[in-house]
Amino acid sequence: MTPVTILGTGMALPAREVSAAEVEQLASLPAGWVMRHSGVRRRFFAEHETASSLGAKAALQALQRAGLELGQVDCLVAACGTYEQALPCRASLMHRQLGLSPVVPAFDVDSTCLSFATALDLLSLAVAAGRYQHVLIVSADLASPGLNWRDPESCTLFGDGAAAAVIGSGPSGRILACAMETHSQASALCEIRGGGSRIHPRHYTPDREGEFLFAMDGPALFKLVAQTLPSFFDRLLQQAGVSRQQVLVIPHQASQPSLEKLRRRLALPPERFFNVVADYGNLIAASLPAALHLAVESGQLKRGDLVVLLGTSAGVSLGGMVLEF
Amino acid sequence: MTPVTILGTGMALPAREVSAAEVEQLASLPAGWVMRHSGVRRRFFAEHETASSLGAKAALQALQRAGLELGQVDCLVAACGTYEQALPCRASLMHRQLGLSPVVPAFDVDSTCLSFATALDLLSLAVAAGRYQHVLIVSADLASPGLNWRDPESCTLFGDGAAAAVIGSGPSGRILACAMETHSQASALCEIRGGGSRIHPRHYTPDREGEFLFAMDGPALFKLVAQTLPSFFDRLLQQAGVSRQQVLVIPHQASQPSLEKLRRRLALPPERFFNVVADYGNLIAASLPAALHLAVESGQLKRGDLVVLLGTSAGVSLGGMVLEF
Repeated sequence: MTPVTILGTGMALPAREVSAAEVEQLASLPAGWVMRHSGVRRRFFAEHETASSLGAKAALQALQRAGLELGQVDCLVAACGTYEQALPCRASLMHRQLGLSPVVPAFDVDSTCLSFATALDLLSLAVAAGRYQHVLIVSADLASPGLNWRDPESCTLFGDGAAAAVIGSGPSGRILACAMETHSQASALCEIRGGGSRIHPRHYTPDREGEFLFAMDGPALFKLVAQTLPSFFDRLLQQAGVSRQQVLVIPHQASQPSLEKLRRRLALPPERFFNVVADYGNLIAASLPAALHLAVESGQLKRGDLVVLLGTSAGVSLGGMVLEF
Repeated sequence: MTPVTILGTGMALPAREVSAAEVEQLASLPAGWVMRHSGVRRRFFAEHETASSLGAKAALQALQRAGLELGQVDCLVAACGTYEQALPCRASLMHRQLGLSPVVPAFDVDSTCLSFATALDLLSLAVAAGRYQHVLIVSADLASPGLNWRDPESCTLFGDGAAAAVIGSGPSGRILACAMETHSQASALCEIRGGGSRIHPRHYTPDREGEFLFAMDGPALFKLVAQTLPSFFDRLLQQAGVSRQQVLVIPHQASQPSLEKLRRRLALPPERFFNVVADYGNLIAASLPAALHLAVESGQLKRGDLVVLLGTSAGVSLGGMVLEF
């Protein structure tokens, strides 16, 4: 049990809204394909925005909702799944965008789509230990530059965006349980092989493009998740000492069909399973904090409520956290 | 004050040793240039090794030194400055190399060259809180794929390698003080602009190669560090309640000339300032834990000794930690 309060949340999206019909054009798909297969009717693609500029915007909203000034932040954590540039780390770029004082340290925590949950777990322990007072956790991902338009299964799922939360010790709030598993034998099911030291961008040629783009084996991934996530979820609830009837589950917004199948496997009614993927697509690491923000803004999540952040990530990891909000 | 024991350390290098003379050939430099300017007489470049294979090797040595089995590890953290591939996170790839059980979570902590210190800080808090028993922190970086052979100032400094530490609660050991500052207004002084969403590898062409390679403004970086690190170091010692006469300083092994200038500015005698950069080059994030490992193996750092891990990173960040080893 770690005492921590999510003092405020925020979200930022690029200006350009992209419809299902436009994605069908980009990917040379027949009309209706996107809604039938990915269920994402709308997503946003960055044009002039950068991940760090969107992250900074989301961070400022989170501070505003928390009633805090930028000067009250004493740690900045970037919790992303994509990179803005190969060096330095993403938190430094956000720190610069926000114009934070040098006394505020900035670093990244990365577990791909679960980065926000991992950062929330670690930094809650740091807040509880008195190491920091107010930590900004910012997830900002641009999926669109790395999409493979020849792979309809994946390119129709994602959107760009950012979300943030500011945490601290507060009058209420605690983490009741937290867990993560890494099924690394399946790490090649969801990857971008190029872009690092294994296949450096130097080796890029147009005929090798696919190696530098997102690739996944959707059916194999879903099979692994279907086999492992339900019992993981049960153990998490048990560890927290709560029942599925008491919680709102906020899942990583992976894709409409997989979310719907997952909801049934977890035996949750629609009103206890937060699903907004149709409006934003899969925002990678920003997906979980964006959904958290939207649940708070819509009034579906209130102080004192029990909430489960639950998700899967490339790697392949399962992660979950039961919070008293 | 966080109780934590560094139970064991390890290090791994690629098989291929590269002399100063060979670097002079690669970079078309006159004989003697490398020793005069970078002072790195030897470094290792990966051929068949990957960052994760070197990281796994270093991790196994750390476990062996700690007298622990792989099955006793309950968390794996990759603390690197470079990427092996764009997705998934580096810890998943190391987890797979090590063949760890799915119950062991794997994630990254990244503050570029300071990643190891940041991870040690955060995970020590997690160990102290009882969240984990034995955490493997592994730093593995391949610098060589991203070096710019037309930039002698930077390409002569780096080497490839990995280092690891396993931490837990133990009979002794504690962190007496820990601090980090991020001077993000200087983030462009040391960067690789391409490779992420800002300049995706898709946009690579041979004439844009420089944007995908390491670039730094050495003199401006050194000026910033010279202005800020001495007082940062003094505050750190003060926070820990120790004097410079009591500690062994293990600095990030950036480059021979900058280390020597730094030692003088910190007013430390050579025997209290650990410097092995001539033998390995700058190993990026692996530099700090590799130096820690070499200090332990050589007998210069013993149980109960006071040690300061101190460094700078792209971003630009300063970081330091006073440990009772």
